[in-house]
Amino acid sequence: MHTTVLGEGNTPCIHSRDYGEDLWFKMESQNPTGSYKDRFAAPAIAALASPSPPTVIATSSGNTGAALAAYAARFGVRLAVVTGANAPPAKLAPICAHGAKVLLVEDFAEDPELTAAVLRSIEQFTERTGAVMVVSAFRYSPAAMEGVSAIATELAALAPRHVVIPVGGGGLYTAIARGFLAAGMQDVKLHAVQPNGGATVAGAWRQNLRTALPMPGKTAISGLSVPLDLDATTALGHLYACGGMGIVLEDGEIYQAQRRLFDEEGICAEPAGAAAFAAYVKARDEGLVKPGERAVCLITGHGWKDAASLASRDEAAPPISANQLLEALQEYAR
Amino acid sequence: MHTTVLGEGNTPCIHSRDYGEDLWFKMESQNPTGSYKDRFAAPAIAALASPSPPTVIATSSGNTGAALAAYAARFGVRLAVVTGANAPPAKLAPICAHGAKVLLVEDFAEDPELTAAVLRSIEQFTERTGAVMVVSAFRYSPAAMEGVSAIATELAALAPRHVVIPVGGGGLYTAIARGFLAAGMQDVKLHAVQPNGGATVAGAWRQNLRTALPMPGKTAISGLSVPLDLDATTALGHLYACGGMGIVLEDGEIYQAQRRLFDEEGICAEPAGAAAFAAYVKARDEGLVKPGERAVCLITGHGWKDAASLASRDEAAPPISANQLLEALQEYAR
Repeated sequence: MHTTVLGEGNTPCIHSRDYGEDLWFKMESQNPTGSYKDRFAAPAIAALASPSPPTVIATSSGNTGAALAAYAARFGVRLAVVTGANAPPAKLAPICAHGAKVLLVEDFAEDPELTAAVLRSIEQFTERTGAVMVVSAFRYSPAAMEGVSAIATELAALAPRHVVIPVGGGGLYTAIARGFLAAGMQDVKLHAVQPNGGATVAGAWRQNLRTALPMPGKTAISGLSVPLDLDATTALGHLYACGGMGIVLEDGEIYQAQRRLFDEEGICAEPAGAAAFAAYVKARDEGLVKPGERAVCLITGHGWKDAASLASRDEAAPPISANQLLEALQEYAR
Repeated sequence: MHTTVLGEGNTPCIHSRDYGEDLWFKMESQNPTGSYKDRFAAPAIAALASPSPPTVIATSSGNTGAALAAYAARFGVRLAVVTGANAPPAKLAPICAHGAKVLLVEDFAEDPELTAAVLRSIEQFTERTGAVMVVSAFRYSPAAMEGVSAIATELAALAPRHVVIPVGGGGLYTAIARGFLAAGMQDVKLHAVQPNGGATVAGAWRQNLRTALPMPGKTAISGLSVPLDLDATTALGHLYACGGMGIVLEDGEIYQAQRRLFDEEGICAEPAGAAAFAAYVKARDEGLVKPGERAVCLITGHGWKDAASLASRDEAAPPISANQLLEALQEYAR
């Protein structure tokens, strides 16, 4: 039994049914608010707890906001979360439930210039008013991002050869790379996975560029649309340094991997949380990751975060009366 | 790092903000499918894994079904879940996502006679067809229920004087009582909490009865409406034996406690998951639990399980344009 603020971190690691002990899943979906962002939010908000905590203005695609809202409630911090207008409702509901405000901004996290302008606005506003800006990126909140590096420490005992990481802004990748470096494990290959509609890091790697590729966010995968260079160029540097690969996927490949996790592994991941598995399957099929080489895929967020992606399956049939049950059960009488 | 089937068990324990180290929360909401039912589902389904696993017909108010669906996918078991017509949709979506079927039956888990008849139908059907009936109760699936007893083992290090447990059918309470007995800790007071509209155990205790009170399920708290004596009389026996109390609450007190968890503790619990906290607050206010006596409240399920109860808060305002953001932020310029 471990004790933390709300129970963040020390998430389970489970092995794959289909790939056995070659492949492990790091279940970040089992953090208190359902994503790895709790590892960031806990120190970010705890650092502000004081007799008179400031107001926090944060940006988020949803998971950071939900994480910050829980810790903000715990520490009595007033919070407003700026997010894109198409964030999944299930990510926003807990933000409101914890008493924080959501500010939906059109085209945020899609249009690069508009997104940069919004960040500048918040920066100026917080400087002027004494509010604090929180963004889950080393560029803005480096101390709290160190909380995410604990993922590497927790994986060290598995001694993986590959760790497959979904990349949005690049903060998660950077944090894990720093964690492995701090643990003296610089030979773990950390692979960066992105959808084609947001391949700022993985796309740059494939073109052998030294700086990230800011581009309009054109993916439907919530959390992986970050059209700016937050920590992307930093992540790209680590990607070259550790000898990892940039892996670019179509959205459809990610949804397919999400369904395979549901069907075969028994894991309920949001689409972004399934992206690493999609990339592992692809890399293994192409011989880039070999049988017997231990890999870890990060399941970064729980399936409930994106209800629409769950509902793509058959839904429950209309209610029946108790008298009709035996008839309905007949199809199970093989 | 612990490894299990899907990462069930060994959930975090966190202390209360408002009550300090007098009160701890056992975060069963951080199990893989968001409730303590994973501790049951893992051994229940693993025991059926074989070259040719049988079909499973289960009953559930939602959480058991979601748990079984995940493990059934993992072990290749075909599953149909019989549930009441008013089960929260967010509990059913993962069942369907994992490829299991949901059979909604009108008045199931509300009308005692109808519910008993449905259980008998399933029993007869499975006996006739070789399918397996799974119900998360000692009465039906005793071996797998032992998986739930690990909660007691995990709490032993805290040496609590009180453990506050929401009771539906009585299986959770019975499992924890057995766990503490097995650990030689028979002096921990285990309190049974139920809504007034389903007080089969706690109501019986208050009337000093020796058998549970089957009654129509008239509570809106999903998971705590079990109008039958599954493990209720067994739980009642343990309740007398350990010197615990039966605590009966109105639904409104439970919703109020859920909101207090959101607002003050930073915990996102479904209503049933907040019931233990509601009972603790009441018992403490009434002097039945004293300052300095360590108590643990079980947070049995995550808030996302019951989206309607989250949405009772303000929702996000309509989207604004980036140009309107500075104006919207003005209210944070205290």
